[in-house]
Amino acid sequence: MSPGLDVQDVDDPDDPRLDDFRDLNSIDRRPDLPTGKGLVIAEGVLVVQRMLASRFTPHALLGTERRLDELKDDLAGPEDQAAPFYRTTADVMAQVVGFHLNRGVLAAARRVPEPGVAQLVDGARTIAVLEGVNDHENLGSIFRNAAGLGVDAVVFGSGCADPLYRRAVRVSMGHALLVPYARCANWPADLKTLRESGFRLLAMTPDGGACALAEAMATARDDRVAVLVGAEGPGLTPATLRLSDVRVRIPMSRGTDSLNVATAAALAFYERVRLGE
Amino acid sequence: MSPGLDVQDVDDPDDPRLDDFRDLNSIDRRPDLPTGKGLVIAEGVLVVQRMLASRFTPHALLGTERRLDELKDDLAGPEDQAAPFYRTTADVMAQVVGFHLNRGVLAAARRVPEPGVAQLVDGARTIAVLEGVNDHENLGSIFRNAAGLGVDAVVFGSGCADPLYRRAVRVSMGHALLVPYARCANWPADLKTLRESGFRLLAMTPDGGACALAEAMATARDDRVAVLVGAEGPGLTPATLRLSDVRVRIPMSRGTDSLNVATAAALAFYERVRLGE
Repeated sequence: MSPGLDVQDVDDPDDPRLDDFRDLNSIDRRPDLPTGKGLVIAEGVLVVQRMLASRFTPHALLGTERRLDELKDDLAGPEDQAAPFYRTTADVMAQVVGFHLNRGVLAAARRVPEPGVAQLVDGARTIAVLEGVNDHENLGSIFRNAAGLGVDAVVFGSGCADPLYRRAVRVSMGHALLVPYARCANWPADLKTLRESGFRLLAMTPDGGACALAEAMATARDDRVAVLVGAEGPGLTPATLRLSDVRVRIPMSRGTDSLNVATAAALAFYERVRLGE
Repeated sequence: MSPGLDVQDVDDPDDPRLDDFRDLNSIDRRPDLPTGKGLVIAEGVLVVQRMLASRFTPHALLGTERRLDELKDDLAGPEDQAAPFYRTTADVMAQVVGFHLNRGVLAAARRVPEPGVAQLVDGARTIAVLEGVNDHENLGSIFRNAAGLGVDAVVFGSGCADPLYRRAVRVSMGHALLVPYARCANWPADLKTLRESGFRLLAMTPDGGACALAEAMATARDDRVAVLVGAEGPGLTPATLRLSDVRVRIPMSRGTDSLNVATAAALAFYERVRLGE
Protein backbone atom coordinates (compact mmCIF):
# COMPACT_ATOMS: atom_id res chain seq x y z
CA MET A 1 0.00 0.00 0.00
CA SER A 2 1.32 3.43 -0.84
CA PRO A 3 2.08 5.41 2.30
CA GLY A 4 2.39 8.89 0.76
CA LEU A 5 5.57 10.89 0.61
CA ASP A 6 7.53 12.82 3.25
CA VAL A 7 11.00 13.63 1.91
CA GLN A 8 13.69 14.25 4.54
CA ASP A 9 17.31 15.03 3.64
CA VAL A 10 19.96 13.14 5.61
CA ASP A 11 23.73 13.79 5.37
CA ASP A 12 25.05 11.99 8.43
CA PRO A 13 25.45 8.22 8.02
CA ASP A 14 25.15 7.86 11.83
CA ASP A 15 21.72 9.50 11.88
CA PRO A 16 19.53 7.23 14.06
CA ARG A 17 16.60 7.68 11.66
CA LEU A 18 18.48 5.33 9.32
CA ASP A 19 18.90 2.53 11.85
CA ASP A 20 16.53 0.16 10.07
CA PHE A 21 18.90 0.20 7.08
CA ARG A 22 22.17 -0.19 8.98
CA ASP A 23 24.80 -2.92 8.31
CA LEU A 24 22.39 -5.00 6.26
CA ASN A 25 24.87 -7.79 5.64
CA SER A 26 25.72 -8.40 9.28
CA ILE A 27 22.74 -7.29 11.37
CA ASP A 28 19.42 -9.08 11.60
CA ARG A 29 20.38 -12.14 9.63
CA ARG A 30 17.38 -13.96 11.05
CA PRO A 31 14.63 -11.32 11.01
CA ASP A 32 12.07 -14.12 11.20
CA LEU A 33 13.11 -15.21 14.71
CA PRO A 34 11.76 -13.59 17.90
CA THR A 35 15.29 -12.25 18.48
CA GLY A 36 15.29 -10.62 15.04
CA LYS A 37 14.10 -7.14 14.13
CA GLY A 38 11.34 -8.58 11.98
CA LEU A 39 11.96 -6.17 9.15
CA VAL A 40 11.28 -6.77 5.49
CA ILE A 41 13.70 -4.90 3.21
CA ALA A 42 13.01 -4.15 -0.44
CA GLU A 43 15.94 -3.17 -2.71
CA GLY A 44 15.69 -1.32 -5.99
CA VAL A 45 12.91 0.53 -7.75
CA LEU A 46 11.07 -2.52 -9.10
CA VAL A 47 11.05 -4.41 -5.80
CA VAL A 48 10.06 -1.28 -3.85
CA GLN A 49 7.18 -0.82 -6.30
CA ARG A 50 6.09 -4.38 -5.67
CA MET A 51 6.32 -3.84 -1.91
CA LEU A 52 4.07 -0.79 -2.31
CA ALA A 53 1.59 -3.01 -4.16
CA SER A 54 1.79 -5.71 -1.47
CA ARG A 55 0.41 -6.23 2.03
CA PHE A 56 3.73 -4.90 3.43
CA THR A 57 3.47 -1.13 3.83
CA PRO A 58 6.90 0.51 4.12
CA HIS A 59 7.36 2.68 7.19
CA ALA A 60 10.60 4.22 5.87
CA LEU A 61 12.58 4.51 2.62
CA LEU A 62 16.21 5.42 1.98
CA GLY A 63 17.46 6.45 -1.42
CA THR A 64 19.03 8.85 -3.85
CA GLU A 65 17.34 11.78 -5.55
CA ARG A 66 17.25 9.87 -8.82
CA ARG A 67 15.41 6.89 -7.36
CA LEU A 68 13.01 9.20 -5.55
CA ASP A 69 12.11 10.70 -8.92
CA GLU A 70 11.48 7.26 -10.37
CA LEU A 71 9.24 6.30 -7.45
CA LYS A 72 7.32 9.56 -7.00
CA ASP A 73 4.12 8.39 -8.65
CA ASP A 74 4.14 5.13 -6.75
CA LEU A 75 4.57 6.97 -3.47
CA ALA A 76 1.61 9.33 -3.96
CA GLY A 77 -0.84 8.69 -1.13
CA PRO A 78 -2.63 10.36 1.76
CA GLU A 79 -0.30 12.81 3.51
CA ASP A 80 -1.35 11.84 7.01
CA GLN A 81 -0.08 8.30 6.38
CA ALA A 82 3.16 9.44 4.74
CA ALA A 83 6.31 7.39 5.37
CA PRO A 84 9.61 9.28 5.42
CA PHE A 85 11.82 9.02 2.35
CA TYR A 86 15.34 9.69 3.61
CA ARG A 87 17.04 11.32 0.66
CA THR A 88 20.81 11.08 0.60
CA THR A 89 23.81 10.28 -1.61
CA ALA A 90 25.01 6.90 -2.84
CA ASP A 91 28.11 7.40 -0.64
CA VAL A 92 26.16 7.90 2.57
CA MET A 93 23.92 4.97 1.66
CA ALA A 94 26.98 2.75 1.24
CA GLN A 95 28.26 3.81 4.67
CA VAL A 96 24.89 3.08 6.27
CA VAL A 97 24.18 -0.31 4.71
CA GLY A 98 27.84 -1.38 4.81
CA PHE A 99 28.38 -2.04 1.11
CA HIS A 100 27.87 -0.32 -2.19
CA LEU A 101 24.28 -0.78 -3.24
CA ASN A 102 23.89 0.00 -6.90
CA ARG A 103 20.12 -0.21 -6.77
CA GLY A 104 20.01 3.16 -5.00
CA VAL A 105 16.85 2.74 -2.95
CA LEU A 106 15.63 0.66 -0.02
CA ALA A 107 12.31 0.38 1.75
CA ALA A 108 11.65 -1.14 5.19
CA ALA A 109 8.37 -2.67 6.31
CA ARG A 110 7.26 -4.71 9.29
CA ARG A 111 6.02 -8.27 9.01
CA VAL A 112 2.31 -8.92 8.99
CA PRO A 113 0.45 -11.93 10.43
CA GLU A 114 0.46 -14.97 8.16
CA PRO A 115 -2.76 -16.77 7.27
CA GLY A 116 -3.33 -20.40 8.14
CA VAL A 117 -3.00 -22.97 5.38
CA ALA A 118 -6.76 -23.57 5.08
CA GLN A 119 -7.40 -19.87 4.59
CA LEU A 120 -4.46 -19.57 2.19
CA VAL A 121 -5.56 -22.28 -0.23
CA ASP A 122 -9.24 -21.33 -0.22
CA GLY A 123 -10.06 -20.75 -3.88
CA ALA A 124 -6.57 -21.70 -5.09
CA ARG A 125 -6.34 -23.96 -8.12
CA THR A 126 -2.57 -24.53 -8.18
CA ILE A 127 -0.23 -24.34 -5.20
CA ALA A 128 3.42 -25.14 -4.52
CA VAL A 129 4.38 -27.01 -1.36
CA LEU A 130 8.01 -26.74 -0.24
CA GLU A 131 9.95 -29.01 2.12
CA GLY A 132 13.49 -28.29 3.26
CA VAL A 133 14.09 -25.49 0.77
CA ASN A 134 16.62 -23.74 2.97
CA ASP A 135 18.44 -21.67 0.37
CA HIS A 136 17.30 -18.07 0.00
CA GLU A 137 18.11 -17.88 -3.70
CA ASN A 138 16.20 -21.03 -4.52
CA LEU A 139 13.30 -19.82 -2.41
CA GLY A 140 13.29 -16.44 -4.16
CA SER A 141 13.45 -18.11 -7.57
CA ILE A 142 10.51 -20.35 -6.69
CA PHE A 143 8.41 -17.30 -5.81
CA ARG A 144 9.41 -15.59 -9.06
CA ASN A 145 8.52 -18.70 -11.04
CA ALA A 146 5.27 -19.14 -9.11
CA ALA A 147 4.22 -15.58 -9.90
CA GLY A 148 5.11 -15.89 -13.58
CA LEU A 149 3.57 -19.30 -14.11
CA GLY A 150 0.17 -19.05 -12.49
CA VAL A 151 0.70 -20.52 -9.03
CA ASP A 152 -1.84 -19.12 -6.57
CA ALA A 153 -0.07 -19.73 -3.26
CA VAL A 154 2.96 -21.32 -1.60
CA VAL A 155 2.75 -23.65 1.40
CA PHE A 156 5.79 -24.19 3.64
CA GLY A 157 6.42 -27.58 5.15
CA SER A 158 9.34 -28.03 7.53
CA GLY A 159 12.91 -26.86 7.08
CA CYS A 160 12.42 -23.93 4.72
CA ALA A 161 14.25 -20.62 4.79
CA ASP A 162 12.54 -17.29 5.47
CA PRO A 163 10.85 -16.00 2.26
CA LEU A 164 11.02 -12.42 3.58
CA TYR A 165 14.78 -12.44 4.03
CA ARG A 166 16.36 -9.68 1.96
CA ARG A 167 18.07 -11.93 -0.56
CA ALA A 168 14.98 -14.08 -1.09
CA VAL A 169 12.92 -10.95 -1.73
CA ARG A 170 15.52 -9.62 -4.16
CA VAL A 171 15.92 -12.85 -6.15
CA SER A 172 12.13 -13.20 -6.29
CA MET A 173 12.00 -9.76 -7.95
CA GLY A 174 9.61 -8.80 -5.15
CA HIS A 175 7.17 -11.62 -5.76
CA ALA A 176 7.90 -13.09 -2.32
CA LEU A 177 5.92 -10.06 -1.10
CA LEU A 178 3.04 -10.67 -3.50
CA VAL A 179 2.46 -14.41 -3.81
CA PRO A 180 0.59 -15.43 -0.65
CA TYR A 181 2.09 -18.13 1.53
CA ALA A 182 1.52 -19.91 4.82
CA ARG A 183 3.36 -22.35 7.05
CA CYS A 184 2.02 -25.76 7.98
CA ALA A 185 1.36 -26.16 11.68
CA ASN A 186 1.43 -29.96 11.36
CA TRP A 187 3.92 -31.29 8.86
CA PRO A 188 3.57 -33.55 6.96
CA ALA A 189 0.09 -34.36 8.36
CA ASP A 190 -1.31 -31.17 6.79
CA LEU A 191 -0.84 -32.84 3.41
CA LYS A 192 -3.85 -35.00 4.26
CA THR A 193 -5.91 -31.88 4.86
CA LEU A 194 -4.83 -30.55 1.48
CA ARG A 195 -5.88 -33.78 -0.17
CA GLU A 196 -9.23 -33.65 1.62
CA SER A 197 -9.65 -30.13 0.22
CA GLY A 198 -9.47 -31.65 -3.24
CA PHE A 199 -5.79 -31.12 -4.05
CA ARG A 200 -3.98 -33.79 -5.99
CA LEU A 201 -0.50 -34.00 -4.47
CA LEU A 202 2.23 -34.29 -7.11
CA ALA A 203 5.62 -35.07 -5.54
CA MET A 204 8.59 -34.13 -7.71
CA THR A 205 11.41 -36.69 -7.58
CA PRO A 206 14.38 -37.67 -9.76
CA ASP A 207 13.27 -41.33 -9.35
CA GLY A 208 13.24 -42.88 -12.82
CA GLY A 209 10.26 -45.06 -11.92
CA ALA A 210 8.02 -42.08 -11.27
CA CYS A 211 5.29 -40.85 -13.60
CA ALA A 212 6.41 -38.47 -16.37
CA LEU A 213 5.50 -34.85 -15.65
CA ALA A 214 3.31 -34.34 -18.71
CA GLU A 215 1.31 -37.49 -18.02
CA ALA A 216 0.87 -36.74 -14.32
CA MET A 217 -0.25 -33.19 -15.01
CA ALA A 218 -2.64 -34.29 -17.74
CA THR A 219 -4.28 -36.76 -15.36
CA ALA A 220 -4.72 -33.97 -12.80
CA ARG A 221 -5.93 -31.48 -15.38
CA ASP A 222 -9.37 -30.96 -13.87
CA ASP A 223 -8.22 -31.23 -10.25
CA ARG A 224 -6.74 -28.74 -7.87
CA VAL A 225 -3.00 -29.42 -7.90
CA ALA A 226 -0.25 -29.13 -5.29
CA VAL A 227 3.30 -29.36 -6.66
CA LEU A 228 5.57 -30.72 -3.89
CA VAL A 229 9.31 -30.02 -4.13
CA GLY A 230 12.12 -30.80 -1.71
CA ALA A 231 15.61 -29.50 -1.14
CA GLU A 232 18.26 -30.03 -3.77
CA GLY A 233 20.15 -33.18 -2.94
CA PRO A 234 17.94 -34.97 -0.44
CA GLY A 235 14.66 -34.10 -2.15
CA LEU A 236 11.35 -34.80 -0.44
CA THR A 237 11.44 -36.94 2.69
CA PRO A 238 10.07 -40.52 2.57
CA ALA A 239 7.18 -39.51 4.85
CA THR A 240 6.15 -36.78 2.42
CA LEU A 241 6.50 -39.05 -0.60
CA ARG A 242 4.26 -41.60 1.12
CA LEU A 243 1.55 -38.99 1.70
CA SER A 244 1.57 -37.78 -1.91
CA ASP A 245 -0.81 -39.01 -4.61
CA VAL A 246 1.71 -39.49 -7.38
CA ARG A 247 5.49 -39.32 -7.76
CA VAL A 248 6.45 -37.22 -10.73
CA ARG A 249 9.72 -37.07 -12.66
CA ILE A 250 11.07 -34.69 -15.24
CA PRO A 251 12.45 -36.56 -18.25
CA MET A 252 16.22 -36.10 -17.83
CA SER A 253 19.31 -37.03 -19.80
CA ARG A 254 21.30 -39.93 -18.43
CA GLY A 255 24.40 -39.09 -16.40
CA THR A 256 23.06 -35.79 -15.09
CA ASP A 257 21.83 -34.86 -11.64
CA SER A 258 18.46 -33.56 -10.86
CA LEU A 259 17.79 -29.99 -11.92
CA ASN A 260 17.90 -27.06 -9.55
CA VAL A 261 14.80 -27.16 -7.32
CA ALA A 262 13.44 -23.84 -8.61
CA THR A 263 13.91 -25.01 -12.20
CA ALA A 264 12.16 -28.31 -11.51
CA ALA A 265 9.29 -26.40 -9.90
CA ALA A 266 9.12 -24.06 -12.91
CA LEU A 267 8.79 -27.00 -15.30
CA ALA A 268 5.89 -28.38 -13.25
CA PHE A 269 4.19 -24.97 -13.06
CA TYR A 270 4.68 -24.52 -16.82
CA GLU A 271 3.16 -27.90 -17.58
CA ARG A 272 0.11 -26.92 -15.52
CA VAL A 273 -0.25 -23.62 -17.42
CA ARG A 274 0.23 -25.31 -20.80
CA LEU A 275 -2.51 -27.85 -20.16
CA GLY A 276 -4.83 -25.19 -18.78
CA GLU A 277 -4.62 -22.90 -21.82
CA MET B 1 40.75 -37.59 -18.75
CA SER B 2 42.21 -39.18 -15.64
CA PRO B 3 45.85 -38.19 -15.21
CA GLY B 4 46.87 -40.76 -12.61
CA LEU B 5 47.83 -40.00 -9.06
CA ASP B 6 50.97 -38.48 -7.50
CA VAL B 7 50.23 -37.46 -3.90
CA GLN B 8 52.50 -34.72 -2.48
CA ASP B 9 52.06 -33.34 1.04
CA VAL B 10 52.23 -29.57 1.40
CA ASP B 11 52.22 -27.67 4.73
CA ASP B 12 53.33 -24.20 3.68
CA PRO B 13 50.61 -22.02 2.18
CA ASP B 14 53.30 -20.01 0.37
CA ASP B 15 54.62 -23.10 -1.44
CA PRO B 16 54.97 -22.05 -5.11
CA ARG B 17 53.61 -25.40 -6.25
CA LEU B 18 50.19 -24.10 -5.15
CA ASP B 19 50.31 -20.92 -7.22
CA ASP B 20 47.58 -21.99 -9.61
CA PHE B 21 45.17 -22.08 -6.67
CA ARG B 22 46.17 -18.80 -5.04
CA ASP B 23 43.78 -15.92 -4.19
CA LEU B 24 41.01 -17.33 -6.35
CA ASN B 25 38.61 -14.48 -5.66
CA SER B 26 40.97 -11.71 -6.67
CA ILE B 27 43.47 -13.13 -9.17
CA ASP B 28 42.71 -14.10 -12.72
CA ARG B 29 39.18 -12.77 -12.87
CA ARG B 30 39.32 -12.89 -16.66
CA PRO B 31 41.13 -16.14 -17.40
CA ASP B 32 39.65 -16.08 -20.89
CA LEU B 33 41.59 -12.99 -21.95
CA PRO B 34 45.16 -13.09 -23.34
CA THR B 35 46.26 -11.32 -20.14
CA GLY B 36 44.66 -14.03 -18.00
CA LYS B 37 46.22 -17.25 -16.78
CA GLY B 38 43.82 -19.30 -18.86
CA LEU B 39 43.13 -21.76 -16.09
CA VAL B 40 39.98 -23.75 -15.57
CA ILE B 41 39.28 -24.48 -11.90
CA ALA B 42 36.99 -27.24 -10.69
CA GLU B 43 35.69 -27.14 -7.09
CA GLY B 44 34.37 -30.07 -5.10
CA VAL B 45 34.34 -33.81 -5.64
CA LEU B 46 31.48 -33.92 -8.14
CA VAL B 47 32.82 -31.15 -10.36
CA VAL B 48 36.36 -32.55 -10.22
CA GLN B 49 34.94 -35.92 -11.29
CA ARG B 50 33.23 -34.23 -14.21
CA MET B 51 36.46 -32.44 -15.13
CA LEU B 52 38.22 -35.82 -15.15
CA ALA B 53 35.54 -37.08 -17.54
CA SER B 54 35.87 -34.01 -19.78
CA ARG B 55 38.30 -32.76 -22.40
CA PHE B 56 40.04 -30.69 -19.68
CA THR B 57 42.76 -32.80 -18.07
CA PRO B 58 43.81 -31.40 -14.68
CA HIS B 59 47.54 -30.74 -14.33
CA ALA B 60 47.29 -30.26 -10.53
CA LEU B 61 44.88 -30.87 -7.67
CA LEU B 62 44.75 -29.44 -4.16
CA GLY B 63 42.70 -30.99 -1.40
CA THR B 64 42.27 -32.66 1.94
CA GLU B 65 42.92 -36.29 2.78
CA ARG B 66 39.20 -36.96 2.92
CA ARG B 67 38.55 -35.66 -0.59
CA LEU B 68 41.56 -37.55 -1.89
CA ASP B 69 39.98 -40.74 -0.57
CA GLU B 70 36.72 -39.93 -2.29
CA LEU B 71 38.48 -39.27 -5.60
CA LYS B 72 41.01 -42.11 -5.56
CA ASP B 73 39.21 -44.34 -8.03
CA ASP B 74 38.57 -41.46 -10.41
CA LEU B 75 42.25 -40.53 -10.34
CA ALA B 76 43.56 -43.98 -11.21
CA GLY B 77 45.48 -43.69 -14.49
CA PRO B 78 48.89 -44.26 -16.09
CA GLU B 79 51.64 -43.26 -13.65
CA ASP B 80 53.78 -41.55 -16.25
CA GLN B 81 50.96 -39.05 -16.85
CA ALA B 82 50.22 -38.52 -13.16
CA ALA B 83 49.20 -35.04 -12.03
CA PRO B 84 50.25 -33.99 -8.52
CA PHE B 85 47.57 -34.07 -5.82
CA TYR B 86 48.77 -31.56 -3.23
CA ARG B 87 47.44 -32.96 0.04
CA THR B 88 46.99 -30.46 2.83
CA THR B 89 44.61 -29.28 5.55
CA ALA B 90 41.44 -27.22 5.18
CA ASP B 91 43.25 -24.40 7.01
CA VAL B 92 46.17 -24.25 4.58
CA MET B 93 43.74 -24.47 1.67
CA ALA B 94 41.82 -21.47 3.04
CA GLN B 95 45.06 -19.48 3.32
CA VAL B 96 46.00 -20.36 -0.25
CA VAL B 97 42.71 -19.69 -1.99
CA GLY B 98 41.87 -16.71 0.25
CA PHE B 99 38.58 -17.91 1.69
CA HIS B 100 37.16 -20.96 3.42
CA LEU B 101 36.29 -23.51 0.80
CA ASN B 102 34.00 -26.13 2.24
CA ARG B 103 34.19 -28.32 -0.81
CA GLY B 104 37.70 -29.40 0.19
CA VAL B 105 39.19 -30.07 -3.23
CA LEU B 106 40.21 -28.12 -6.33
CA ALA B 107 41.59 -29.14 -9.70
CA ALA B 108 43.30 -26.89 -12.25
CA ALA B 109 43.39 -27.51 -15.99
CA ARG B 110 44.46 -25.50 -18.99
CA ARG B 111 42.05 -24.39 -21.71
CA VAL B 112 41.84 -26.38 -24.90
CA PRO B 113 41.15 -25.09 -28.42
CA GLU B 114 37.46 -24.54 -29.15
CA PRO B 115 35.84 -26.01 -32.25
CA GLY B 116 34.21 -23.86 -34.90
CA VAL B 117 30.44 -23.62 -34.96
CA ALA B 118 30.06 -25.82 -38.06
CA GLN B 119 32.08 -28.59 -36.44
CA LEU B 120 30.24 -28.15 -33.14
CA VAL B 121 26.74 -28.56 -34.51
CA ASP B 122 27.56 -31.43 -36.84
CA GLY B 123 25.16 -34.19 -35.83
CA ALA B 124 23.42 -32.06 -33.18
CA ARG B 125 19.64 -32.21 -33.05
CA THR B 126 19.00 -29.52 -30.42
CA ILE B 127 21.27 -26.60 -29.61
CA ALA B 128 21.08 -23.47 -27.49
CA VAL B 129 22.25 -20.13 -28.89
CA LEU B 130 23.07 -17.41 -26.36
CA GLU B 131 23.33 -13.66 -26.92
CA GLY B 132 24.45 -11.21 -24.24
CA VAL B 133 24.28 -13.74 -21.40
CA ASN B 134 26.94 -11.98 -19.35
CA ASP B 135 26.13 -13.36 -15.92
CA HIS B 136 28.22 -16.34 -14.79
CA GLU B 137 25.44 -17.86 -12.69
CA ASN B 138 22.91 -17.71 -15.49
CA LEU B 139 25.48 -19.14 -17.87
CA GLY B 140 26.28 -21.97 -15.49
CA SER B 141 22.59 -22.70 -14.96
CA ILE B 142 22.02 -22.83 -18.71
CA PHE B 143 24.76 -25.46 -19.07
CA ARG B 144 23.28 -27.48 -16.21
CA ASN B 145 19.82 -27.31 -17.78
CA ALA B 146 21.23 -28.10 -21.24
CA ALA B 147 22.94 -31.22 -19.90
CA GLY B 148 19.87 -32.39 -18.02
CA LEU B 149 17.39 -31.71 -20.79
CA GLY B 150 19.01 -33.16 -23.88
CA VAL B 151 20.70 -30.18 -25.51
CA ASP B 152 23.63 -31.31 -27.64
CA ALA B 153 25.69 -28.11 -27.83
CA VAL B 154 25.78 -24.43 -26.94
CA VAL B 155 26.62 -21.65 -29.41
CA PHE B 156 27.80 -18.26 -28.18
CA GLY B 157 26.78 -15.12 -30.01
CA SER B 158 28.15 -11.78 -28.87
CA GLY B 159 28.33 -10.43 -25.35
CA CYS B 160 28.41 -13.63 -23.34
CA ALA B 161 30.45 -14.33 -20.23
CA ASP B 162 33.18 -16.96 -20.06
CA PRO B 163 31.65 -20.43 -19.50
CA LEU B 164 34.93 -21.68 -18.02
CA TYR B 165 35.04 -19.06 -15.29
CA ARG B 166 35.11 -20.73 -11.88
CA ARG B 167 31.64 -19.65 -10.80
CA ALA B 168 30.04 -20.66 -14.09
CA VAL B 169 31.67 -24.09 -13.83
CA ARG B 170 30.49 -24.46 -10.23
CA VAL B 171 26.88 -23.41 -10.86
CA SER B 172 26.78 -25.68 -13.92
CA MET B 173 27.69 -28.61 -11.61
CA GLY B 174 30.60 -29.20 -13.98
CA HIS B 175 28.48 -29.45 -17.10
CA ALA B 176 30.16 -26.36 -18.57
CA LEU B 177 33.14 -28.72 -18.98
CA LEU B 178 31.08 -31.44 -20.63
CA VAL B 179 28.50 -29.85 -22.91
CA PRO B 180 30.39 -28.79 -26.06
CA TYR B 181 30.27 -25.15 -27.09
CA ALA B 182 31.70 -22.80 -29.68
CA ARG B 183 31.75 -19.08 -30.36
CA CYS B 184 30.38 -17.48 -33.51
CA ALA B 185 33.01 -15.75 -35.60
CA ASN B 186 30.34 -13.71 -37.39
CA TRP B 187 27.42 -12.67 -35.26
CA PRO B 188 24.56 -12.59 -35.98
CA ALA B 189 25.30 -13.61 -39.58
CA ASP B 190 26.22 -17.12 -38.43
CA LEU B 191 22.53 -17.64 -37.71
CA LYS B 192 21.99 -17.88 -41.45
CA THR B 193 24.56 -20.66 -41.63
CA LEU B 194 22.75 -22.48 -38.86
CA ARG B 195 19.47 -22.18 -40.73
CA GLU B 196 21.13 -23.44 -43.93
CA SER B 197 22.34 -26.44 -41.89
CA GLY B 198 18.68 -27.26 -41.26
CA PHE B 199 18.18 -25.66 -37.87
CA ARG B 200 14.89 -24.00 -37.12
CA LEU B 201 15.71 -20.87 -35.12
CA LEU B 202 13.33 -20.34 -32.19
CA ALA B 203 13.83 -16.93 -30.58
CA MET B 204 12.58 -16.71 -26.99
CA THR B 205 10.89 -13.38 -26.20
CA PRO B 206 8.42 -12.07 -23.63
CA ASP B 207 6.48 -10.47 -26.52
CA GLY B 208 2.82 -11.41 -26.05
CA GLY B 209 2.30 -11.59 -29.82
CA ALA B 210 4.84 -14.39 -30.25
CA CYS B 211 3.97 -18.03 -30.83
CA ALA B 212 3.29 -20.11 -27.71
CA LEU B 213 6.20 -22.39 -26.79
CA ALA B 214 4.29 -25.67 -27.08
CA GLU B 215 2.95 -24.78 -30.51
CA ALA B 216 6.30 -23.56 -31.84
CA MET B 217 8.10 -26.64 -30.60
CA ALA B 218 5.43 -28.99 -32.00
CA THR B 219 5.79 -27.36 -35.43
CA ALA B 220 9.56 -27.91 -35.27
CA ARG B 221 9.23 -31.44 -33.94
CA ASP B 222 10.94 -33.13 -36.90
CA ASP B 223 13.49 -30.36 -37.50
CA ARG B 224 16.80 -29.61 -35.94
CA VAL B 225 16.12 -26.86 -33.40
CA ALA B 226 18.15 -23.92 -32.10
CA VAL B 227 16.74 -22.24 -28.97
CA LEU B 228 17.88 -18.60 -28.95
CA VAL B 229 17.92 -16.75 -25.62
CA GLY B 230 19.10 -13.25 -24.76
CA ALA B 231 20.17 -11.47 -21.61
CA GLU B 232 17.66 -10.85 -18.87
CA GLY B 233 16.18 -7.43 -19.35
CA PRO B 234 17.10 -6.50 -22.91
CA GLY B 235 16.53 -9.98 -24.35
CA LEU B 236 17.60 -10.78 -27.90
CA THR B 237 18.63 -7.89 -30.10
CA PRO B 238 16.34 -6.77 -32.96
CA ALA B 239 18.91 -8.01 -35.51
CA THR B 240 18.85 -11.48 -33.99
CA LEU B 241 15.06 -11.52 -33.77
CA ARG B 242 14.89 -10.60 -37.49
CA LEU B 243 17.15 -13.51 -38.42
CA SER B 244 15.15 -16.06 -36.43
CA ASP B 245 12.44 -18.27 -37.90
CA VAL B 246 9.86 -17.83 -35.18
CA ARG B 247 9.43 -15.74 -32.06
CA VAL B 248 8.43 -17.87 -29.12
CA ARG B 249 6.84 -16.89 -25.82
CA ILE B 250 6.30 -18.73 -22.58
CA PRO B 251 2.71 -18.35 -21.37
CA MET B 252 3.12 -16.00 -18.38
CA SER B 253 0.82 -14.53 -15.77
CA ARG B 254 -0.09 -10.90 -16.26
CA GLY B 255 1.83 -8.35 -14.19
CA THR B 256 5.02 -10.40 -13.98
CA ASP B 257 8.34 -9.93 -15.73
CA SER B 258 9.94 -12.42 -17.95
CA LEU B 259 11.44 -15.42 -16.20
CA ASN B 260 15.12 -15.79 -15.45
CA VAL B 261 16.96 -16.55 -18.71
CA ALA B 262 18.14 -19.98 -17.57
CA THR B 263 14.62 -20.89 -16.48
CA ALA B 264 13.16 -19.75 -19.80
CA ALA B 265 15.77 -21.83 -21.61
CA ALA B 266 14.95 -24.85 -19.41
CA LEU B 267 11.27 -24.61 -20.32
CA ALA B 268 12.14 -24.60 -24.02
CA PHE B 269 14.56 -27.52 -23.63
CA TYR B 270 11.92 -29.41 -21.64
CA GLU B 271 9.28 -28.86 -24.28
CA ARG B 272 11.67 -30.27 -26.86
CA VAL B 273 12.32 -33.38 -24.74
CA ARG B 274 8.62 -33.86 -23.99
CA LEU B 275 7.66 -33.83 -27.68
CA GLY B 276 10.56 -36.10 -28.60
CA GLU B 277 9.67 -38.85 -26.12
